[in-house]
Amino acid sequence: MIKEQLLQYVRSFVALTDEESEQFLAPFEEVHVKKRQFIVQPNFTNKHRAFVVKGAFRSYAVHDGQEHTLQFAIENWWVSDFNSYIYQHPATLFIVALEDSILLQIEYSREQELKKANHKFETFFRIMAEKGLAFEHRRIIFNLCHSAEARYENFILNFPNFIQRVPQYALASYLGMTTEFLSRIRNKKAHRRS
Amino acid sequence: MIKEQLLQYVRSFVALTDEESEQFLAPFEEVHVKKRQFIVQPNFTNKHRAFVVKGAFRSYAVHDGQEHTLQFAIENWWVSDFNSYIYQHPATLFIVALEDSILLQIEYSREQELKKANHKFETFFRIMAEKGLAFEHRRIIFNLCHSAEARYENFILNFPNFIQRVPQYALASYLGMTTEFLSRIRNKKAHRRS
Repeated sequence: MIKEQLLQYVRSFVALTDEESEQFLAPFEEVHVKKRQFIVQPNFTNKHRAFVVKGAFRSYAVHDGQEHTLQFAIENWWVSDFNSYIYQHPATLFIVALEDSILLQIEYSREQELKKANHKFETFFRIMAEKGLAFEHRRIIFNLCHSAEARYENFILNFPNFIQRVPQYALASYLGMTTEFLSRIRNKKAHRRS
Repeated sequence: MIKEQLLQYVRSFVALTDEESEQFLAPFEEVHVKKRQFIVQPNFTNKHRAFVVKGAFRSYAVHDGQEHTLQFAIENWWVSDFNSYIYQHPATLFIVALEDSILLQIEYSREQELKKANHKFETFFRIMAEKGLAFEHRRIIFNLCHSAEARYENFILNFPNFIQRVPQYALASYLGMTTEFLSRIRNKKAHRRS
């Protein structure tokens, strides 16, 4: 059962009784998304927080006709325009499916009800936000301190599962470089190995 | 009383009774820090989360002899090496006082006790983490999409109170540019105004 995957994930952070598990999972809806379909678009409010059960997503901003990738998400990651979701303001990001995907999503007001209903659920969402914040701090520090090549090496090391699943131009824009530059780095690495 | 300032801040996010307020404030200690003193250094674990009552701080990483500024904090901001604090791992950042300052700080294990003891305290720290995460997302998106000049304009617009209090080289490194480049942008702006 699809909700079992989310439950296992949640239970790795907080201990839930069977009754609590049921209460937590109840407001989550299963959504099937086709490759290239958008789940969030600028100017529309991001009404759901979504857990990736299967598939892959990319979030990006478009400025002066250029795409700038903020995040990727695969199985067991959450995906949303977080600013839009937590403040219930219009989104600034596009979020697109990179593969046929399955999500479990919860509507904003239902999440607030969950957090109010049970201290443990509040703890779970606190941990999610803290992990997310720590992740972004590591990313900002790494990007401030390191070259494009080091950023690519670091991505391979930390996210080996993403490499085969995200398009090269999207990865380049995530790492803050052109597609041509990423190609050159990859070719140099391939030569060093051979 | 110094703790009153923290209490007002907390109460702007969660409603606390007088008894709860006392319980929340009890583990916070007042700390006076002189200008140029460090409250966090690399390789030492950041044991406290600190609320700035008065003064200003800067957190930065050093790589290949270069300083890279991650954050500034003035009155009513929190300051820590967040990765070090939430995982209780050795810090990677320096945090230095830019002025003579007063902090209210809580030790890691005491914070965990607070969060366990009262659902509302958990809610408060969840909101802090979510606001922090949304802030960093906005910052990453803005930096990906905009020029150095636009990043400076945006900083002035959003943080007018910081401009007079942070050294020019620190602001330049926060915005990802050289001090010389920031000077040029500032001069250009001054000329446009005159």
